[in-house]
Amino acid sequence: MSDFQYFMIPGPTQLPPDVLGALSAPMVNHRGPEFKEIMDKIHSNLQTIYKTKNDIITLTCSGSGALEASIVNFLNKGDKALVISIGNFGQRYFTICQKYGIDAELIDFAWGEALDPEIVLAKLAADTKHEIKAVIMQHNETSTGVYNNIKAIAEGKKDHPALTIVDAVSSLGACPLETDAWGLDIVVSASQKALMAPPGLAFISVSERAWKIAESCTNNRFYFDLLNAREFKKIGQTPFTPSVTVAYGVLAATERIVKQGIDNYVAEHFLRRDVVRAGIRGLGLQLLADDDCASPAVTTILLPEGIKPEDIREPMRTKFNIIIAGGMGKYKDTTIRIGHIGFMNMGDILVTLACLEMVLKQNGYELELGCGVAAAQKLLMEKL
Amino acid sequence: MSDFQYFMIPGPTQLPPDVLGALSAPMVNHRGPEFKEIMDKIHSNLQTIYKTKNDIITLTCSGSGALEASIVNFLNKGDKALVISIGNFGQRYFTICQKYGIDAELIDFAWGEALDPEIVLAKLAADTKHEIKAVIMQHNETSTGVYNNIKAIAEGKKDHPALTIVDAVSSLGACPLETDAWGLDIVVSASQKALMAPPGLAFISVSERAWKIAESCTNNRFYFDLLNAREFKKIGQTPFTPSVTVAYGVLAATERIVKQGIDNYVAEHFLRRDVVRAGIRGLGLQLLADDDCASPAVTTILLPEGIKPEDIREPMRTKFNIIIAGGMGKYKDTTIRIGHIGFMNMGDILVTLACLEMVLKQNGYELELGCGVAAAQKLLMEKL
Repeated sequence: MSDFQYFMIPGPTQLPPDVLGALSAPMVNHRGPEFKEIMDKIHSNLQTIYKTKNDIITLTCSGSGALEASIVNFLNKGDKALVISIGNFGQRYFTICQKYGIDAELIDFAWGEALDPEIVLAKLAADTKHEIKAVIMQHNETSTGVYNNIKAIAEGKKDHPALTIVDAVSSLGACPLETDAWGLDIVVSASQKALMAPPGLAFISVSERAWKIAESCTNNRFYFDLLNAREFKKIGQTPFTPSVTVAYGVLAATERIVKQGIDNYVAEHFLRRDVVRAGIRGLGLQLLADDDCASPAVTTILLPEGIKPEDIREPMRTKFNIIIAGGMGKYKDTTIRIGHIGFMNMGDILVTLACLEMVLKQNGYELELGCGVAAAQKLLMEKL
Repeated sequence: MSDFQYFMIPGPTQLPPDVLGALSAPMVNHRGPEFKEIMDKIHSNLQTIYKTKNDIITLTCSGSGALEASIVNFLNKGDKALVISIGNFGQRYFTICQKYGIDAELIDFAWGEALDPEIVLAKLAADTKHEIKAVIMQHNETSTGVYNNIKAIAEGKKDHPALTIVDAVSSLGACPLETDAWGLDIVVSASQKALMAPPGLAFISVSERAWKIAESCTNNRFYFDLLNAREFKKIGQTPFTPSVTVAYGVLAATERIVKQGIDNYVAEHFLRRDVVRAGIRGLGLQLLADDDCASPAVTTILLPEGIKPEDIREPMRTKFNIIIAGGMGKYKDTTIRIGHIGFMNMGDILVTLACLEMVLKQNGYELELGCGVAAAQKLLMEKL
């Protein structure tokens, strides 16, 4: 068996050959003109992908570090905030708020469902004194495979001054995102999801009015101080030594996305989603998310009674080199997740369905070999 | 001119060919057994390099992020601490303490000098109530090119219970370090210095008694929570998506160091230091640090009156592809720094001296071409 794994997880993703090649370039001085040029190009590409004119700041950390940065620079201890949760990563935002003493109200939707804009907007409308300083939300929730209508919140809140803070780590490049048109203040992403670069860098766009709030924010912060990062960005640097190699990868990967066109790249993710869902339905298995909020990045599948995630994941990995994800949170023991984000071929999905059929059958689940693949093929022949 | 730069800066360093090659390996699942194996090997290699049996935790961030982690997990707001500074990075530790409301006393030695153990140990001896919770210090100060006798502090403090917190970012692999023999509680390092891997990962060793203190520490922390990282390490993972590509590089690089032997690798750095210093003296220039505390990682050179760092650095870079560092802090406009850390050949030093001679001469400094190189050659012929 080769040492190349099919990466059917919701990130990190496998890397395109030109991205892999870029990683083995020798070091350049991160305080010199060569690196400034690389970072300027990355930020310009990311502005295209984010659809924004806002500043984009690069941090050397995982997406979770940038989530922390998106809170500690804009909210003070005791500030009121709404945290919308539809799964595991919404809970993570709530945890960050708690760690920093922010008076966060958790609006907790059922796992597998999307946020209901009416409920959130009613909270904001009732806050006539404008005590709520931020609305914090996931664009895409990888634990359940659901994506949120954040446009409805950003546009529906109208003149309420609460900042919109968005975790787009697993959505940027996979879900439609219009940072400026929707008026999103702070949008967090990371290198290793649909951006199809290695993990190690995270990005955060900051609106003009969010910067003003950061300037008066007194929260403890050092490594994640975005004002400091903004100062260094003016001379094309980062305050601390950046992950230079990962930046090479991000440059190569974002060039690909800009060349393909961000809307085309997003559309490709939706087609992958539809093909996976058709295939899984062809197998006779249930999907956790409804069609209207199903994530273009990852699909959560309910397992037949008596079959555990490891019964599937282990043989998929050891026999076929296919990495799929287990369940999370309340669906930990009853679901598997198939990621379809970033760099992959449509063929990878067909292979995954074919191998899933074999592994399910070996686990005693009755099916006719080829049923899932055929359902996916049928859709593909209509679409391609 | 080739696109390979001589990296005569105090990190990041250029990367050995096998490290560069390792970076272009495809992704493995960071929650799977393949990555656990990589991390286990890295931690084992690092224990050898650190000379410790303590836990080593890996963080995805620059060294400065790990410096923050080395404070926020072990000190609470209002705790007393001694911060020893001999330059820019000592000041950084003091800044971190201030950001988190720690009652830090700065013991500020002159730039270019090493810490004086007597002064520090007298402070500890006077603290009979044991109110000082930590002694925080640099092992090597890259701004001045001086290294500290941290052994004298760690051993000399005897039964005072203050934690020893050490920034070994630019020393590990270049300076002699005996974590366990000297009883160092917390030691911070990073991937891109003498470890000769790309920037993006940082490491922190934590003693048993430091872990106990972390367990009752109430400081705000999320991304840098080391207790959380310790839990994930038990299953071979990190709490947040790690910089997988950089880990490939660190594995390859630490294998090299273990194979060469850490003591041999450190000795190589001392020889480089001596060769640089002999060469610079041969040029008739002054060195900032005295021989007995001169850093094996970087050498700070006082420029002749009327010559600015950029007058040297710019032609070195554009004519010869040699990257040297400028001055820092109070020596910003009057010094240059030549790094000699990590992956390089002794020949790189000779080239640097030769080109420095030409550039100095073009700036009006009188010298006989070859004088610096000859002084370095003389020492090399005795030693090799």
